[in-house]
Amino acid sequence: MAQELATQNVSVNAQLHSEIQLFYARQMQLLDAGDFDAWAMTFAVDGVFAANAYPAPVTGRDNIAAAAQEATVALAKQGLQRRHWLGMLSAESDGSIARVTCYALVIETPRGGVPSLRHSTVCTDELGRAGGEWVVRKRHVHRDDLT
Amino acid sequence: MAQELATQNVSVNAQLHSEIQLFYARQMQLLDAGDFDAWAMTFAVDGVFAANAYPAPVTGRDNIAAAAQEATVALAKQGLQRRHWLGMLSAESDGSIARVTCYALVIETPRGGVPSLRHSTVCTDELGRAGGEWVVRKRHVHRDDLT
Amino acid sequence: MAQELATQNVSVNAQLHSEIQLFYARQMQLLDAGDFDAWAMTFAVDGVFAANAYPAPVTGRDNIAAAAQEATVALAKQGLQRRHWLGMLSAESDGSIARVTCYALVIETPRGGVPSLRHSTVCTDELGRAGGEWVVRKRHVHRDDLT
Repeated sequence: MAQELATQNVSVNAQLHSEIQLFYARQMQLLDAGDFDAWAMTFAVDGVFAANAYPAPVTGRDNIAAAAQEATVALAKQGLQRRHWLGMLSAESDGSIARVTCYALVIETPRGGVPSLRHSTVCTDELGRAGGEWVVRKRHVHRDDLT
Repeated sequence: MAQELATQNVSVNAQLHSEIQLFYARQMQLLDAGDFDAWAMTFAVDGVFAANAYPAPVTGRDNIAAAAQEATVALAKQGLQRRHWLGMLSAESDGSIARVTCYALVIETPRGGVPSLRHSTVCTDELGRAGGEWVVRKRHVHRDDLT
Repeated sequence: MAQELATQNVSVNAQLHSEIQLFYARQMQLLDAGDFDAWAMTFAVDGVFAANAYPAPVTGRDNIAAAAQEATVALAKQGLQRRHWLGMLSAESDGSIARVTCYALVIETPRGGVPSLRHSTVCTDELGRAGGEWVVRKRHVHRDDLT
C-alpha cells in the first residue's frame, strides 16, 4: 500500500513533523500513565494493532484499549512501571494520511530497582485525522528479538 | 496551577516545539560536559529543582548549580560518564511560559565498561524566558523506582 | 574550524531542525536495515568518519560504506540486530553547512534475547548539501567508555 501511494507522499514539513512527534509523546504518556480511555481515542474506531509478538492483529479501538489495559494492570501488580520511547522517526504524508516508521523502546523499572531495556522494536504506523487530531489507523510493531 | 491556566495554554507550534527541544539538548549537553557555569544560566535566578529523590527542593540558580557540580564531580572521580536523555516531550504554552512533560533517562558508562540505564524518570518543567532564552523556572523529576 | 565560522552560524530554525532530524532518522534506519547502498549516499563522496574507537579515520563514501557493511554482516551472522538512536541534538547552521552535536546510543538485541545498551557516544557532524539532500561531510564519534 505504501508503494501504491508513493507518488503522492512527500517527506513531512516542520509543522507536520512537530504535530506527529507531539502526537506520539502524548499517546505514550497516556499509555504509561494508565489513562486508557484517553489513550483509546488516539486510535481510529476501526484501528488495527498488529505485531510479530501477537498471534493475530487486534482490531477496533475498544479491543486495542482492553488489551493494553489488561497488560498494564498485570505489570502494575508486579510493581513494574513501563515507559515507551519512540525515536528516529521518519514520515511521509499527503496531508491527510501519514506513514511513519520509527524505533520504539520499552523500558521497565521495578519499584526499588534499576530500569532495564525490555524490548527494542520498529513501529510502522498509518496515521489519519479524526476531529482535527491524528489517530492511528494501522500499527505494526516488530520486535527485534523475534523473527 | 496547570489547571488554572489551562484555558490560556495551547499545544506548541513547530517553532516553539523546536526551540524547546534545542533548549533541552543544550542544557543536557552542558550538564554532562561539566560546564556548570553555562548550565546554571539555563535556570531562572529563583529557579526551583524538586525531585521525589530529594528530601526538599533545591531553590535558586546558585544552589542548583552547586548541587549538580558536586554530584558530577563525585561521579567523575569514579570514572563514570553520565548522559541525560530527554524524550517523548509534550508541551503547552501561552508564548511566554511553557509547561513541559517529558521522559528523562540517565545513562551511565564506566571507563572501559558498558553503559547501563541508571534512572528512568518523568520530568515536569515550567519554562520562562530570560533575555530571549528559555530558562527553567520550576522542575520536578519523578524517578520511576521511587514512590 | 567551528570557531572560525562561529560568527556566521546561528541556531537552526524549526524547518532546518526538522530536516536534520529526518535526515538522521533515515540514515540510521538505512544502516540498521542493512541498506548500505542507500546509506552510503548519506555521506559526501569525500566524507570522513572518525572515532575514538578507530585507529585512523575512514575516508571516502565507498570506504565508509564498506566498513559499515563488514561490521553489520558480522553482527548479523551472530544473530544480533543493532539500532542506532540519536538524540539531544543541537545544531548551528549558515544554511548550507550545519554543525551538529548529538548523543548516539547503540542498542543490540540478540535473536530470542533481551536488548542491551552497547555503546553510549557523542556524535559531532559537519553536514553539507548535495543534490538538495543533507549529507555527512565529517563525522566524529566519541565513545564514553574510551578516552
